[in-house]
Parts: sequence; C-alpha cells; structure tokens
Amino acid sequence: MARILITSGPTRQYLDPVRYLSNASSGRMGCALAAAAVAAGYEVIVVSGPVEVEYPPEIEVIRVVSTQEMLDAAQAAFPRCDGLIAVAAPCDYQPVEVSATKLKRTGESLEIKLIETPDIVGTLGREKGARWIVAFALETHDPRTNAVQKLRRKNCDWIVLNGPEAINQQATQVEILDPAGAVVASLAGDKRQVAVELLQAIASQWMPPR
Amino acid sequence: MARILITSGPTRQYLDPVRYLSNASSGRMGCALAAAAVAAGYEVIVVSGPVEVEYPPEIEVIRVVSTQEMLDAAQAAFPRCDGLIAVAAPCDYQPVEVSATKLKRTGESLEIKLIETPDIVGTLGREKGARWIVAFALETHDPRTNAVQKLRRKNCDWIVLNGPEAINQQATQVEILDPAGAVVASLAGDKRQVAVELLQAIASQWMPPR
Repeated sequence: MARILITSGPTRQYLDPVRYLSNASSGRMGCALAAAAVAAGYEVIVVSGPVEVEYPPEIEVIRVVSTQEMLDAAQAAFPRCDGLIAVAAPCDYQPVEVSATKLKRTGESLEIKLIETPDIVGTLGREKGARWIVAFALETHDPRTNAVQKLRRKNCDWIVLNGPEAINQQATQVEILDPAGAVVASLAGDKRQVAVELLQAIASQWMPPR
Repeated sequence: MARILITSGPTRQYLDPVRYLSNASSGRMGCALAAAAVAAGYEVIVVSGPVEVEYPPEIEVIRVVSTQEMLDAAQAAFPRCDGLIAVAAPCDYQPVEVSATKLKRTGESLEIKLIETPDIVGTLGREKGARWIVAFALETHDPRTNAVQKLRRKNCDWIVLNGPEAINQQATQVEILDPAGAVVASLAGDKRQVAVELLQAIASQWMPPR
C-alpha cells in the first residue's frame, strides 16, 4: 500500500524566546488530506508545524516548530514514502540573529535582518527520484504564472493554487496545474470535500490500483 | 455587579497579506479567568486576539487582530468596567511598511524596520481613574525588578509575573506583585485553578461583597 508524506501547518521563526515570524496556516487542509488518505486506505506520515487541529489518530505525526526542523523531518521520512503533498506554509524568512532573552522595548525602532529559510519543496524536489510531489502555492499576484514557475523551479508534478483568503478558513477554492500550465481540475467547497477530490485526482494519476 | 474587562491572547502585526509577527499566547489563561469570573457572578468583557480557545458563551467577546485594534476595543469597553485584567500578549512591534502583495523570495536578505505598537496597559493606566488594573508580565531577565518597574510605569495595581514556559501550556506558575514590590501571592498549577485563585485575590482586594 502506498505511503503518503504530508507537510502541514505553518512553521515559526523566533526572534527571541517569545516573538516569532509566522503565518495563519491552521493545518486544516493538511488534516483533511490526511483523513481522506487514511479513509482511502493509504498510510500517511504528517510533518506538522504548531497547529490546534487534531490529526487522525491512525497516522504518524511528527511535530516541528521551525522550517529547518520541518525540512529535516520531511527529508528523513520521504524515502519511506511514495509521494509528497506539501500543503504546509513554512515561514520562509528567519532572523539572522536570535536573542536568548526577550528583547526589551526601548522606545526606539528596531531593524531586523531576515534571511531565507531552507526551501523544503525545492530540496525534496531535487531528491525525489521516482516519487511524485504535489505542492500548494499561495499567490496574491499573477497567480497562475507564479504557481507554474514555482512548480518547474521546484521539480513538482502538480501545483495546487490557492489564495490567502483560504488561510484558516473552513472552505477553499483551488486549481490544480500541471507542468505545462494546464488546469487539471478546479475544486471548491469545504476543505474536507476538496481534500477528498484532490486525493482522488492524485491517486488516479500516480497510485492506480494494482 | 462588577464588570471585568479581560484582554486575552496574542495580537498579530502583518508584514504582507500572509506573514506576520506574533507570539504563542494561546488565550488559555484569559479563557480560564473569564470562566472563573463568570462562575463568581461577575460580568465579563473579553477583548481577544486570534486564538482557538472557546470563551464561555455567556460573555461578550470582541475579536481583534492587531495591537491597535485591541487598544481601540479595550479603550471603548473600559469605561463600562470596574477593572482590567490584562493577560493578553500583544505584539509590541509592527513593521513600518506593510506590503499589499505577498513579498516574493528573491534569494536576498530582507531588512525590516519595526516600530513599537501602542502600549495598551500603559494607555489604560493613564485613563483608569478609580478602576483597578492587574496586568501580566512575561520576563526572562531579572523578572521581579522588570515586572515591578512595568507596574509602576503603566500605573497598574498588581502585576502577575510569569515566564515564557507558561505560554501555550496547560499549567502555569505566577507571582502577584504589588507596587512596593512585595509578593502578594504565589500561585502554581493548572491554569484554571490558578485563574480561580487569582480572581479570588482580586475580588477580595477590589470587589468586596457589598
């Protein structure tokens, strides 16, 4: 039986023991995809950032905080899996310096220098071999063009395009795009239903019944 | 019957439509204090940042995202209340510039300039008149000294000192300090139990039965 790796939720990059940079990803779509995959009989490994959603009890969940930790866990699990659904929204910048004590307010402005975090999908894309990768892209500007460029740059098989209005909501609206930029499917509705349909599309493409 | 204003949870300061600066405050302590106050027969207004906890259905909850929104809502509600328990962990820095579209990764580092957000407790402290203010302080360095300085600077009546290890946990350990720096009480345990004891201490000090 095929085993699917799912990255889910946000990651956090701390500036000090209290403050961090992150985003509002709730893990709901990752959770819905994990549930749909379990229901369809697949094994599932989820690498999840800090979220409040409860993943299906049958699956292995590896909890991480930072983007580097998510990359490390996903890289370790990927060889055991047949494919990756990358629905996580990893924090993609990190402060160059992390303070060991809480930064005190001084009344002055504060300059922080951020550098990019490791590219999880790009890294796994280079290492994928015969595995498939379906990655989510959140774009606010020229979305299809940017999403397809991301697919090609990161060596994905499909990219699932959504907008910021889906973050932390129950419902979503997505387009599945292939490397040629063609729309494989458009799905809309409750995230659980969209997850079921997306998983069916992935299964029929890369995990046909033997 | 006395009415208590509680600020609860984190706030967020967005850099662009997706990324924000925040902290891991869960709203659990604010929720526990609201429940304890309702159980003791008080009216409660909660001004809450984005959290997953479910506040008691009997109370008025005003949902906010940014620190300025939390200040505005708390300032509007404070005149209707007898006192404030400020347990929120408002994000205290905000980017000078907020991008209307998602910042693209360029491979380069990124400098962001942060300025302080408005000081919610300090502002309400100046406007409190005959009302009491009990504020939480999270300190990682020289905690008692810093907490008492904060109490005096912000014109609070008590300050409740806790550490970063309490964030997003079920249990906590706090010290109540008065303006002279004396320890009024030390409380430890499940946040719900600590909330009940803290509320009893506040009630006997400022809201004695008439």
